[in-house]
Parts: sequence; structure tokens; C-alpha cells
Amino acid sequence: MSWPKDIVLVGAGNVAWHLGRQLAHCGLCVSYVWSRSAEKATALANHLGCPGGNTLQDIPPRAALYLIAVKDDAIAAVAATLAQVIAPGALVLHTAGATPSTVLSPYFSHYGVFYPLQTFSRDREVDFKTIPLCLFTAQQADYPAVANLARLLSTKVYAVSDEQRAQLHLAAIFVNNFTNYLQHISRSLLREHNLPEELVQPLLMETILKLQDLTPREAQTGPAIREDQATIERHLAMLHDHPQWADIYTILTAGIKHDLG
Amino acid sequence: MSWPKDIVLVGAGNVAWHLGRQLAHCGLCVSYVWSRSAEKATALANHLGCPGGNTLQDIPPRAALYLIAVKDDAIAAVAATLAQVIAPGALVLHTAGATPSTVLSPYFSHYGVFYPLQTFSRDREVDFKTIPLCLFTAQQADYPAVANLARLLSTKVYAVSDEQRAQLHLAAIFVNNFTNYLQHISRSLLREHNLPEELVQPLLMETILKLQDLTPREAQTGPAIREDQATIERHLAMLHDHPQWADIYTILTAGIKHDLG
Repeated sequence: MSWPKDIVLVGAGNVAWHLGRQLAHCGLCVSYVWSRSAEKATALANHLGCPGGNTLQDIPPRAALYLIAVKDDAIAAVAATLAQVIAPGALVLHTAGATPSTVLSPYFSHYGVFYPLQTFSRDREVDFKTIPLCLFTAQQADYPAVANLARLLSTKVYAVSDEQRAQLHLAAIFVNNFTNYLQHISRSLLREHNLPEELVQPLLMETILKLQDLTPREAQTGPAIREDQATIERHLAMLHDHPQWADIYTILTAGIKHDLG
Repeated sequence: MSWPKDIVLVGAGNVAWHLGRQLAHCGLCVSYVWSRSAEKATALANHLGCPGGNTLQDIPPRAALYLIAVKDDAIAAVAATLAQVIAPGALVLHTAGATPSTVLSPYFSHYGVFYPLQTFSRDREVDFKTIPLCLFTAQQADYPAVANLARLLSTKVYAVSDEQRAQLHLAAIFVNNFTNYLQHISRSLLREHNLPEELVQPLLMETILKLQDLTPREAQTGPAIREDQATIERHLAMLHDHPQWADIYTILTAGIKHDLG
């Protein structure tokens, strides 16, 4: 399959918005936006200059590709709905990190995954070209066309199995969810002691930039790796009013000693 | 005190290197570099175009400022040594995050702290102008001169008490040490499943950039904040061979639910 051919977006949330805009930006044709919410479907469709709505009957039945970009727990129901209107043999991919491709197997013979590994917010521009696109197709013969499409959108295209994608999603939880939460703890400590929260922002940025040149093992510093027990105990005493953060401090300190010490 | 006047660097490690280079870059005069290691002192001194060594007698006794940039547990001993050669009434500041200024009080009447809040590596350039300089002087009258000097080096100058600095250093542990360790876990999971480690780098960068516009509370996503127990349990099962990482996953998930849920 060569591109451009038309693509139907099924979903109008953050992922669908960013993906849809990049498809349009790269000159690809989104022929319809469907969402359970007619309002959200229309908003994205208007943005992309195509029809959209929550009407099953208006979905083009012979599009080249259907991209299901809805919440993980809605994928199966949306797939069941979609299967009622599109041509048998159509290619259907979902965009989720944590859901196996096989959620689509009861409904389609040509299915797979088109997972952009990034955290999307509606109002934040991201450089889509740098976003890893993690691809899987149940039928090998479908892979080249999906990869061709992906390479139009991003410079980073990877073949990733269901099992690998589950692990990748777990790794992403550590990178995004947990890292973000550590910043919450840090900023809370600053606030409680009348220190400006932005004080640690340059440190955070350098911590991350370092990891472009060094492994985390090489970049690790601090009392845990130095086995500086006096500092560790002073810090735990300072966290006396936050037993949960003290537990987090203890377990991460033990982890650093165990893994990197 | 107006600058430039001469400054003696006591120490020749990563902090002394970066600080010394910025002093020179800003046209300030480093008149001597002392270190317990003559070799390291000479290397930095040569770089700065001044004398240096481990010889007490060569330290200028009437410099405008002595900056002690050595490991925390060496500060007291170095201060005791320094006190033998410099003029009474000299201004002496240490650069450490985790050590109270009062470690210097047995030796000097004019003392304080000049703490650059950043993680330094010898071979990595950092934009020193953006590094927060956290200042304290035991005698209020010394503060304006120290702040004037700091403002020549960086655009970010803060008055930070000993107690605040201890909390700031603790907050920095969460931002740097623990964040870095989470990346170790994440990359290890990728490696174990034959996925390229750089796959999550764009996600990490966007996670951090988001925090320039959003609070961590606003930026928090993932199964913990959604209370998606099925995903959490699947992830814990995937961490079966890494009980320590499973514990970390559990405690951070509980923390997100508790603090942000």
C-alpha cells in the first residue's frame, strides 16, 4: 500500500488530535473522524477539514486504514461497533500502549498497533517527528505499508511485539508517571520551606540532559551511592512529618545501593 | 566589597572547576588554587592562569574571599588548615549543599555558604548563568558583597538559610538521585526485552518540559492516578523477577493515589 490513501480516525482525544494534525501536516488524507462524542469528533474533523461525527453510517467503509485512538478500556467496544460498518479485510490499528493487539482479533483479520510513545496534552505542541512510533501487525504482509506510513510521520519507527510493548509501557510508567511524582514531592518540600519551586528546575534539566551522554549508572550521585549513612539518616529525620515520602526515600536509597552500589 | 578582588579556590574537584572557570569567564581574579592533591590543584590553576598547589604557605593570606569547594566530610579539616594561614577576619564560604555553615564557625568570624545548585560533571559544559546560587552569610554585613559577586556569575541568586538549604538539598535528592535511578530501572526493563534504551528519551524530555508549564499535579497521568487496578496488577506481575522494583512500583503508586488522587 502506498500513501497517501485515506485514513479514518476513530477517537478524538489527545492522541487522536496530535496524530490527526501530524497526518494532515504530512499531506495525508483523514477522510472521517468518529467519536462517541459528536462534539469532540466535529471539533477535530473541522480542524482537519474533513467530515466527522458519532454516526456509524457516515464512516467510510473502504478506507485504507482505521486508527482507533480511544481509552484502553473502550477499544473492544469501539472495535465491535466499527466492525459493523467497515468492509471485511479492512486494516485496523489501535494506538494504545498497554493493550494487546489481540483485543482486535475477534473483529478484524487485518489488525495491529500504531503506538506513539509520548505523553500528549491538548495544548502542548510536541515535535512529532521525534516521537517513537511502535508498530505491530498481526499479518506480516501488512507491516511494510504501516511502516511506510509511520516513516512519513516520524523519524523513529520501531517494530514492537505485544509482549515488548507491554514492557515498554511499564518502562514508560517509571520514566513519566513516577518521575513526575518525584517532582511533586520535591516541589512540596520546597514550598513547605518557603523556597521557590523553580529552584530545582535547572538541576532537573541537567539530570535529564546528562542521560544523553552517560548511562544512569555513570550519572548516579548522592548519599545512597556513596553509602553516606549519616546524610541518609539526617534526611529521613527531616521527612519525619511525611512518613510516606520517608518510605519512598528509604526504598529508592536501598535500590540505588543494591543495583548500582 | 566591590568586585573584582581576588578569590582563592580551596579545592579542585568538579564544583571548583566549574566555579573557577565561571569566575575567570566573568573577568574575576582567582589568585590561588589549593587542594590536598598538588596535581589537581596545579591542573586547575594552570587552566585559570594562576599559581596553585598543596602548599599552605603559598595561599595568599589577605584574599578578598576563600571558597572551600571540597567534599562535605572534608570541610572541617580543610577549614582548620586554612585558618592557620589566612588573616583573621577573612571571608570564607563553603559550596556544599548538605553541610551547615556552622561547620566553619570554630575557625572564622566571617563565614557562610555559596552553594551552586547543580550536578556537575568534569566534562559536561553547563550554562552557569542559569545555575541557582544559594547564599548565606553568618554576618548580615557580609551578604551584599557575596550577592554582588554571585550576580556577576549567575542570573539566579537566592538567600537561603542553613535550615532551608538542608531541605533544598533533600529536594534535590528526589530531583536528581532518585529521578536518575528511575531511568536506570526503565532502561534495564527495555534492555531485558531487547528494546533500544533510547526509546523512552523523547518521553522523558517531554515529561520534564511539561513541568515548565504545568504543576506535577496537573501533569500526572497513568494507572495510579486513574486508579486502574487491573493495569497496576498486570505491571506488578511483569515485575515478578524484580521484587525490589515491584516494591518501588507499589510505593510510588500508593504515593500518587495518596497525594494526587
